[in-house]
Amino acid sequence: MQPAHPSMTELYRGKFLGLYQTGTWEYCSRTNAHAVVVVVALNEQEELVLTEQFRPPLGCSVIEFPAGLAGDEPGMSDEPLAEAAARELEEEVGYRAQSMKALTSGPTSAGLTDEVIYFFQANQPVRVGPGGGVGGENITVHHVHRSEIHAWLEQQQNRGLMVDPKVYAALYFVERSGAT
Amino acid sequence: MQPAHPSMTELYRGKFLGLYQTGTWEYCSRTNAHAVVVVVALNEQEELVLTEQFRPPLGCSVIEFPAGLAGDEPGMSDEPLAEAAARELEEEVGYRAQSMKALTSGPTSAGLTDEVIYFFQANQPVRVGPGGGVGGENITVHHVHRSEIHAWLEQQQNRGLMVDPKVYAALYFVERSGAT
Repeated sequence: MQPAHPSMTELYRGKFLGLYQTGTWEYCSRTNAHAVVVVVALNEQEELVLTEQFRPPLGCSVIEFPAGLAGDEPGMSDEPLAEAAARELEEEVGYRAQSMKALTSGPTSAGLTDEVIYFFQANQPVRVGPGGGVGGENITVHHVHRSEIHAWLEQQQNRGLMVDPKVYAALYFVERSGAT
Repeated sequence: MQPAHPSMTELYRGKFLGLYQTGTWEYCSRTNAHAVVVVVALNEQEELVLTEQFRPPLGCSVIEFPAGLAGDEPGMSDEPLAEAAARELEEEVGYRAQSMKALTSGPTSAGLTDEVIYFFQANQPVRVGPGGGVGGENITVHHVHRSEIHAWLEQQQNRGLMVDPKVYAALYFVERSGAT
């Protein structure tokens, strides 16, 4: 992402992340992408489609909705967010949607990074492939009926996985909309 | 936080944040705290208590629930999470609760950082002071009736603020519980 301030100082620039400073405030910024997208898909059987993936920073597997970086592929730095959402949905869980509905957006950790995530809901998602991710992402795809999602997420935590709180943020919108 | 891997390499260590690498994966870690807490408070008038705060990494103001670092004060590195939640609730919005109920926990941005956030709900919160934060945090406190929260959050985005998606994650739990 672009650092948010003209007054920022680069403290360190890695291959994917950089550390910056504005005033006395340190923050982390992605050097290879301008935004993150996450997609809720509720299929015709009223199942939510979730991912399970080992996350190196945490040293454990995390339950999430399909998500990824927008504009991180070579020559795609201007990739529209809804297109990135559609690409991630197909890569990670093998679903294609008729369209993407924007739900909300906001910072993932406002004190630590300028990263902003954009939430989408897939309209009429249909399975077209196995998913699993690209480039060694090694994603396990889970289908969970919406009536069982709360208990299922608790079960995953009980078996030692983490659950991304953005799953609950997305479920707030699913519950509000009441239907696909 | 402690880096999650014995095999991690320190790329850069700032005053508050460090950049680390495990395998080919880069991630950011706090050097001065072991966890983040966030607290939902619903008062006797069925109002939710939110904060508005300028966030330097984003260069704008963000709507959040009261939140902060556990164990970041000198000599308090072992501060229990529920105590940190109670401290942040009083510092930021001036409320004191009878007890704290744990709701969930999870990573704020699983690909970027090992930061984990713990959600609490304040039981029977009572106002005891103005809030506003400490050390120049300059927090504006908002009271919003739960029946108006969704529209109010949209209004804040329309006036150019960001809304932390963790607000919606917490609202999912508030909606589920149905009451204080």
